[in-house]
Amino acid sequence: MTNIAILGATGYTALELIKLLLRHPDAKITALTSREVTSPVDIVHPSLTGRISLKLENLSPQEIAARADCVFSCLPHTATAAVAPALLDAGCSVIDFGADYRLHEADVFKKWYGVDHPDAERLGKVPYGLPELFREELPYAPLIANPGCYATSAILPLAPLLKLGFIAPDDIIIDAKSGVSGAGRKPSQKNLYPECNEAISAYGVGNHRHTPEIEQVVATAAGIRPSIIFTPHLVPMDRGILTVTYSKAKAEDVTQLDVIKALANFYEDEPFVKVVTDLPSTKDVIHTNRCHITARVVGRRILTISVIDNLIKGASGAAVQNFNIRFGYPETTALL
Amino acid sequence: MTNIAILGATGYTALELIKLLLRHPDAKITALTSREVTSPVDIVHPSLTGRISLKLENLSPQEIAARADCVFSCLPHTATAAVAPALLDAGCSVIDFGADYRLHEADVFKKWYGVDHPDAERLGKVPYGLPELFREELPYAPLIANPGCYATSAILPLAPLLKLGFIAPDDIIIDAKSGVSGAGRKPSQKNLYPECNEAISAYGVGNHRHTPEIEQVVATAAGIRPSIIFTPHLVPMDRGILTVTYSKAKAEDVTQLDVIKALANFYEDEPFVKVVTDLPSTKDVIHTNRCHITARVVGRRILTISVIDNLIKGASGAAVQNFNIRFGYPETTALL
Amino acid sequence: MTNIAILGATGYTALELIKLLLRHPDAKITALTSREVTSPVDIVHPSLTGRISLKLENLSPQEIAARADCVFSCLPHTATAAVAPALLDAGCSVIDFGADYRLHEADVFKKWYGVDHPDAERLGKVPYGLPELFREELPYAPLIANPGCYATSAILPLAPLLKLGFIAPDDIIIDAKSGVSGAGRKPSQKNLYPECNEAISAYGVGNHRHTPEIEQVVATAAGIRPSIIFTPHLVPMDRGILTVTYSKAKAEDVTQLDVIKALANFYEDEPFVKVVTDLPSTKDVIHTNRCHITARVVGRRILTISVIDNLIKGASGAAVQNFNIRFGYPETTALL
Amino acid sequence: MTNIAILGATGYTALELIKLLLRHPDAKITALTSREVTSPVDIVHPSLTGRISLKLENLSPQEIAARADCVFSCLPHTATAAVAPALLDAGCSVIDFGADYRLHEADVFKKWYGVDHPDAERLGKVPYGLPELFREELPYAPLIANPGCYATSAILPLAPLLKLGFIAPDDIIIDAKSGVSGAGRKPSQKNLYPECNEAISAYGVGNHRHTPEIEQVVATAAGIRPSIIFTPHLVPMDRGILTVTYSKAKAEDVTQLDVIKALANFYEDEPFVKVVTDLPSTKDVIHTNRCHITARVVGRRILTISVIDNLIKGASGAAVQNFNIRFGYPETTALL
Repeated sequence: MTNIAILGATGYTALELIKLLLRHPDAKITALTSREVTSPVDIVHPSLTGRISLKLENLSPQEIAARADCVFSCLPHTATAAVAPALLDAGCSVIDFGADYRLHEADVFKKWYGVDHPDAERLGKVPYGLPELFREELPYAPLIANPGCYATSAILPLAPLLKLGFIAPDDIIIDAKSGVSGAGRKPSQKNLYPECNEAISAYGVGNHRHTPEIEQVVATAAGIRPSIIFTPHLVPMDRGILTVTYSKAKAEDVTQLDVIKALANFYEDEPFVKVVTDLPSTKDVIHTNRCHITARVVGRRILTISVIDNLIKGASGAAVQNFNIRFGYPETTALL
Repeated sequence: MTNIAILGATGYTALELIKLLLRHPDAKITALTSREVTSPVDIVHPSLTGRISLKLENLSPQEIAARADCVFSCLPHTATAAVAPALLDAGCSVIDFGADYRLHEADVFKKWYGVDHPDAERLGKVPYGLPELFREELPYAPLIANPGCYATSAILPLAPLLKLGFIAPDDIIIDAKSGVSGAGRKPSQKNLYPECNEAISAYGVGNHRHTPEIEQVVATAAGIRPSIIFTPHLVPMDRGILTVTYSKAKAEDVTQLDVIKALANFYEDEPFVKVVTDLPSTKDVIHTNRCHITARVVGRRILTISVIDNLIKGASGAAVQNFNIRFGYPETTALL
Repeated sequence: MTNIAILGATGYTALELIKLLLRHPDAKITALTSREVTSPVDIVHPSLTGRISLKLENLSPQEIAARADCVFSCLPHTATAAVAPALLDAGCSVIDFGADYRLHEADVFKKWYGVDHPDAERLGKVPYGLPELFREELPYAPLIANPGCYATSAILPLAPLLKLGFIAPDDIIIDAKSGVSGAGRKPSQKNLYPECNEAISAYGVGNHRHTPEIEQVVATAAGIRPSIIFTPHLVPMDRGILTVTYSKAKAEDVTQLDVIKALANFYEDEPFVKVVTDLPSTKDVIHTNRCHITARVVGRRILTISVIDNLIKGASGAAVQNFNIRFGYPETTALL
Repeated sequence: MTNIAILGATGYTALELIKLLLRHPDAKITALTSREVTSPVDIVHPSLTGRISLKLENLSPQEIAARADCVFSCLPHTATAAVAPALLDAGCSVIDFGADYRLHEADVFKKWYGVDHPDAERLGKVPYGLPELFREELPYAPLIANPGCYATSAILPLAPLLKLGFIAPDDIIIDAKSGVSGAGRKPSQKNLYPECNEAISAYGVGNHRHTPEIEQVVATAAGIRPSIIFTPHLVPMDRGILTVTYSKAKAEDVTQLDVIKALANFYEDEPFVKVVTDLPSTKDVIHTNRCHITARVVGRRILTISVIDNLIKGASGAAVQNFNIRFGYPETTALL
C-alpha cells in the first residue's frame, strides 16, 4: 500500500486522478491540498460524494511528507518546482503533472515560460513519464515529469516513425484538436460555455508551450531532432485530443500498410497503445488510458492520426501508469 | 430615424440587440456604453467586425441623452433604476432589459432582490413590454420594462388559459429549461464549458426571481392571481427556453383540441406567437423572435409546452418589438 | 466464474455492459449476438479494440445456452420474451434490459406496447431488478426484469416518500430530462446530430411507456398506487437523466430537512444511492452506477430532484448489480 | 421580382436558403420539390411555421419552369445534371448547390464521383459561384456552380497568396474542421447524435471530393496549379468550418504583417470577406454570409486560418449572393 497526496486537488486532472486511484487496490489517498479551499473535497467535486471523505487542506511540504509516500502535483508551472526539493528531501516520490521538469534546459524553460526556473539544477535528470518510450527510466525514480497532453498525442506516432526512418525530421506539421477541459477550471470569459460551445478556434499558433517539449522528447527517443509547427485548437467537447501529423516520407514508394505495420510492430506489446486501420474518433478512447493511432500516405506526406483522452492518457492515467511502474505494481492496475 | 444608445453593451443580449438593430432601417446606433471596457466594440464582439465602427464608452446620462432618443439598458438590476430618471428627464425613452421596473411593489422588489429600489415611486406605472398582452400601453411610453425570458415563455401560454377559464389559478407548476447564455457573460466557475457541457441541473428551485414576475403579470393579464411553483434548469446549449406548465383543468371534459383551438384563436393575429399541434423543439424558434406553443391534456391536468429564443423573444427581439411599437414603426421591422 | 452471453450487442447499453463486465473478475463474456452483423465486435464498437476478441454471431437459444450461464438481453421489446422460455428451460439465467417482464398484466402490456405478450403466463412472477427496493427477490432468480431508465430515476425518490406518508398518491407530476443515448443507436432522422444538438424538446407527453411501469412499481414498493403525469424530454447530451417530481405534501408543516432526512435514512445503507443537500447535476453521476437525490419543499408541494446515468444505473450498471446479487458476488463488484 | 423554385427542399441547406429568401424583397418562392415527401414544408421544417405556406411537390422540369425564373438545386450529385438541360432549355436560370458543374473535365468527375457525367459537354463552361474571385462571370449566367463549403474556406485564403507570390504551389496542407450539418439530413448511424457528440474525427483523408475542386479553382484564380493535401474533420457543432492551411513561404523574410496586409488589400472592397488580426472562431461568422481570415508565419510556413458558416457562405448564402449578382440585385440583399 502506498500513501498518496495530491497537490492542487480542485481541478479537473486531480478529480480524474482521484477517481482512478479509488480503483487502485494498493493506493491510499491521504492528503488533498488546496491553497484556497478548505472544504470537504466532495463540495468541490460533487461526483465524489460518498466515495472519499477527505478535506482539502493547505499543507506544508513537511506535513505532506508526513502523510504520503508519493505526491502527485497538479500545481501550476513553477509551483511544483518550488516545493519538490523539500518533498524529495523528505523522502517522497513526486509525479509532476506540470511542465516544470519536462524541458532539459533552464534557458529554454525561461524562453517559453517567461520566468526563471526555481530548481534549475535538476533539469535534464528527471525522467519523462511516457512509459512507451522511457519505461526503463521510471522504476524507483524519485521524480517523474508527467507529459503534456498534446505532447503525448504527437510523440507516440512521431517518435517511432522518425526513429525507424520513415519520415524526415524537418517540416513536420502537427494540427491538434482538444476538448475544453484541457484549459483548466479557473474561471475566464474565454472558457465560458457560450463562448466555447458551437465554436472551434485555433490558439497559440506557433507559440504553444508544448512545441519545445515535443521537439525535445522526440529527439531523445528517436535520436534526431525534428522541427515542428504545432497548431492546437479548442473543440466544443469536454475531453479528448485528436492529433494529425503531416511529415515528409523519406522513401518515395512507402505505403500506408508499411507505416501502419511498422507502428503496430513498434507498439505490439504496449497495453495502452493500439494501432488501428480505420480513422479513429476521440470517442473510441475517452474515459480510458488508451491511445489509438493510424497512418495514411497522401502524395509524399505520411499522415498520422492519433486520439487520446487528454485527462487520462494525457494526464492522470499516465500519472497512475507511471506510479505503477515507479512502485512496482502491475502497470495496468486501475487503468483497465 | 431614431438614434439609439445601448447601456452595458458587452454582454450577450446587447450583442443580439446590435445585430437586430443593424437590420433596422430606421434605427441608428449612436452610443455603446461599458463601465469597464473602452475598446472598439468588435474587439469584445468579434462577430461585429466590419459591421459597426463604434467604441465602447463610459458615458454619463447627459452624454447619452445628447446622442440618443432611445436607450436600451442591458445593465444589472438597480443599475438601470439609478440612471433612468436622469435619462427620462433629459427626454430619452428607456427600454430596460432588467427587472427594475417589472414588479409593481417596492417591498416585493426588496424581498426578491435584496435591496431597496432606487426609483420606487415609478413602480406600477411602467408598462410591461409583452405586446401580445399589453400592446395598447406601449405607444409613446417613456419607459418600458422588457420581460424576463422565463417569464415570457410561461406567461404567453398561461395568461389566456387562465383568462378564458380553462385552468385553475392554484397549484400551477412551471418546469422550464434554458440554454446557458441566459446566465450571462461574466466569468464564473459554474458557467465554464466543462461544468455545463454534458450536464443538466435545476437551480433556484422555489426561489427564482421570475416567480413573482410571472404571478403578477398573469394576474394583471387574466384578472386572477395564480399561485405557481417555478423550477428552472440549465441545459447544455447556447440558447432557447422550453417551458412546460402543468395546471388543473377547470372542466372535466376539456380536450386537447379545445385548448389548442382557444390558444390559436387568442393569438391568431399575432405575428410572433404560433400555436402548433406537434410538440415543439427550441430549435424551431432559436434565432427568431417567435414563440411556438402547444397544449396537451393528461388526466385532469392541462399542460402547455412553449419554446422561445431566450436572447431574442426572451430579451433583445422583444425589446426591438417594443421599440417598434413605441416609436410607431411596423411591429415586425427587423424581426422577420 | 460465470459465463455470459449478451443478446443484441450492437447498441449503446450493450457496449456499456461489455465495458463493465470486462472489469468484473468473475464474469467471462462468451457470446455476443446480433441478427444483422457478424463482424468482430470492435468493428461495431471501436472503443473495444484490443479489449475483447469476440465476434458478433447470430445464435439460437440452444447455442447460447451451451456457452452461457447468464444471458443479458438487450433485444427490443417482445424479442426477449420470444427466446426467454427456451433459455430458461436450458438452464440459463436471464436479465432482460427491455420491458417484456416488467409489467404484471398482459392487458396492460398490450395497451401500452400494442402487441400480445409472447410469454404472458410468466408476467407477475418476475422480480423487478431495482435492488434498493426488491433486493430480497433477486438471489437465485432465473429471470430478472431490469428497470427502465426513467423509471429508476423516478421510483427511487417517490417510493419511500409515498411509503413513509410524506406525499399523497394522486396528482404526482414527473418532469424528466434525458440524454440522447436513451433513444438507441438505430438511424433515424430525429436522432441525427443536427436535429438534437442545440435543442430540447418534450416527447411522449402523457403516453410514454414508462408511465404504467412507474405506477405499478411504486405501488408494489409503497403499498399505495400513485397516479402520475410523466413528461420526458430529450436534452443535447450523450447520457444522464435528471428527474424532478412534484407531489402534494400530506402534512402542512413538512420541511425540506424532514424530507431529506427521511430519504437519507431510507437509503443509508445503499452503496449507490446518495441523498444530498445541494441540487445535483447529471454530471455528478454520469459514468457511475450512482443516483443522487435531493428534495425541496415549495408551498404545499414536495419536489424531488434525482440524477442517474441512463446507460449505467438506468441500464447496464443496474444489470450488473442484479447479476452480482443473483449469483452471490459482492453487490458492488465492477461498479465502483 | 424573381420567381424561385428550390429542388430537394427537405435538407439543411434548403431550409437555410428558404430563410434567407424570405428576407429578400425581390425573390418569391413559388415551388419546393421533393421526390419523397409531399407535405406542407413546415411539417418537414417546423421552424417555417407561419412563415411560408407552400407544399413540397414532386414536379417535372416543365412544371418547375412554368413557375420559376430561377431554380436553386439542392439535389445530390448527378441529379441536377439530369434535369438542368431541360430547365435551361425552358428558360430557367439554375444555381446548383452540388458538384455537378464545378469540375471542368468529365474524366476528373468520373474519377472522384465514380459515375459518368450526365451532361458532360457543359463542363468547363459554367462559372464557379465564388464572387470574390469570379464576379464578372456571373451576371446573366444561365447556370452557376455554387462552391463546396470546404472549398470556399480554403480557396479564399489560398488563391490570393498564390497569385501574389507569397506561397509556393506545392505541398500545401489544408486541415479543415466542419460542423455536422455538412453531412446532410439523411439518417445514418455515423451521424447520430451519440456518435458525433463529444467526439472529433477525421474522414476522407486524402480522398475527399473537394480536393480536385480546390486545386482547379485555385489554379484558375491564381494562374498556378497547387498541389494540396486535404484533411476534413467532423466537429461536434451544428455549423461552421475552420480551415487552417500550411503553405511554404516563397520569401525567407516574409512577416505575418506582410501576409495579413496583402490579404486585407486583396479583399478590401468585399462585403463578406474580412481579414482580421486575431485568431478567429467559427462563432464569429456562423449565421452570417461572412468569412474571416487571418494569417501567421511560423518558420518557413505561412499559415492561414479562415472561418465560415458552412450552410451560409459555404452554401445558401453564397447561392443568394450569386443570385443577386446574376439578376442584378444589390449583392448584399438579404445577406446582412
